[in-house]
Amino acid sequence: MFEIRDKQFLIDCGEGTQIRMRQIGLKTNRMGHVFISHLHGDHVFGLIGIISSFGMLNRTADLHIHSLPELENLLKPQLNFFCEDLPFKVIFHPFNPKQSEVIYEDRSVQIKTIPLKHRVPCCGFLFEEKQGDRHIIREMIDFHEIPVSFIHKIKQGADYMKPDGEVISNEILTKPANVPIRFAYCSDTAYSEKIIPLIEGVDLLFHEATFLEEDIARAKTTMHSTAHQAAQIAAKAQVKKLILGHYSARYSNKKLFLNEAKEIFENTFCAEDLAEFEL
Amino acid sequence: MFEIRDKQFLIDCGEGTQIRMRQIGLKTNRMGHVFISHLHGDHVFGLIGIISSFGMLNRTADLHIHSLPELENLLKPQLNFFCEDLPFKVIFHPFNPKQSEVIYEDRSVQIKTIPLKHRVPCCGFLFEEKQGDRHIIREMIDFHEIPVSFIHKIKQGADYMKPDGEVISNEILTKPANVPIRFAYCSDTAYSEKIIPLIEGVDLLFHEATFLEEDIARAKTTMHSTAHQAAQIAAKAQVKKLILGHYSARYSNKKLFLNEAKEIFENTFCAEDLAEFEL
Repeated sequence: MFEIRDKQFLIDCGEGTQIRMRQIGLKTNRMGHVFISHLHGDHVFGLIGIISSFGMLNRTADLHIHSLPELENLLKPQLNFFCEDLPFKVIFHPFNPKQSEVIYEDRSVQIKTIPLKHRVPCCGFLFEEKQGDRHIIREMIDFHEIPVSFIHKIKQGADYMKPDGEVISNEILTKPANVPIRFAYCSDTAYSEKIIPLIEGVDLLFHEATFLEEDIARAKTTMHSTAHQAAQIAAKAQVKKLILGHYSARYSNKKLFLNEAKEIFENTFCAEDLAEFEL
Repeated sequence: MFEIRDKQFLIDCGEGTQIRMRQIGLKTNRMGHVFISHLHGDHVFGLIGIISSFGMLNRTADLHIHSLPELENLLKPQLNFFCEDLPFKVIFHPFNPKQSEVIYEDRSVQIKTIPLKHRVPCCGFLFEEKQGDRHIIREMIDFHEIPVSFIHKIKQGADYMKPDGEVISNEILTKPANVPIRFAYCSDTAYSEKIIPLIEGVDLLFHEATFLEEDIARAKTTMHSTAHQAAQIAAKAQVKKLILGHYSARYSNKKLFLNEAKEIFENTFCAEDLAEFEL
């Protein structure tokens, strides 16, 4: 799950997701949008349970599901049967996995798809915070007796002209806005340099690392990545931080993934159940 | 899950069941039959995940699902899409929820439905071990020089006639067979005395207790039982042991259920995740 400016976005929904959500005490109404990267069970099977439980908890906010077009037909029979009296709407938003497109936008965030390379059509997601307002310096606003009605424009960068004609430069009245955060989620995918232009310089890249480099042959046939490859993408895209995840159950020691990736990209971390990363 | 004579039967399959199964180290091929009491999500949503995971683990034994007829149509679209290359067959066996019927039988076990009283059609399940063979007393078999070819008949109760015409009574050669075990699973259900003739004297009764007696009004509208009512059924059916379960999330203390039931039926226990009960 990705949280930004008090909004929560769920990315993929394997079986047991609702159990994890209860563990972290998630409020049901705050998560409005779910993004499903591709239609393999480990990314989908938890959806019906979440929707059904939201219904029993009397959630009222609409739930938007962004996914490949087929998902609606797969889920509808179960929704109709198991969730017929939902107190909220479930709205499907299909996307085209062949090209990057904006699939969500509000005042503070824009979300784009990142076409990936997998056995089935699959997209990652790029979360981009929009440039926020500049921060006003309260003392200077008071000192220059700037009316409240003008504050909004000043936050957006305008200078202020006093009644006597004197111009106060915006730089005197404000401090720079926060640098917008960018987060890219790329799973499941084989090694693909095509994604680099889209994720260049992001603050955080989640990249799958299903295998270790010793099993690169298996990574190729199943169209997954190794930890080594994930780190290569991170290095080439000059991201700030890399998080690995989606490890195959065949490995018992996550440290091996971390060590392999760190040889190429130092600022790497391993995703674990319930782990939190702050930006 | 109910295990008898090395066979495992799964009863109901809520979300996360496969996670629990991994925790107890279940072998995938030994569980051949799944019994679904009714079509509410908390009894069904884990099925697709189990089937899909069995496929990835290369299970080869057929999987039989006993349920209301509608389940096949609800699951088929997902099976076709997510599990198209399963290395085993999934075979649906619909039952009629209006009358008790034998839905499974092999040399050692018979399983019957127990029609329950719920908001939707719903059945419990009665597992009855068949009368097993008598246990031979090895020393007496040797002493009377009984040929191996005759052992099977002696286990089934036959006397043995020696070549000289002397008859050795079966009671000298064997000890009684084990007393067959009977287990009844009744969930979800409102209080219903109609089930008593079917479950009379069982070794173990699992009976739902969603509410405490203080919320009996709510139990009535939702067609669930209170701990008090479950104990009443156990007492009237003269079962040997009662296990309560299916508690509403509104109560944080399971002890309250236990205390309430024990006032009426002393030999009561509370089901918990991963708890095991031996018969």
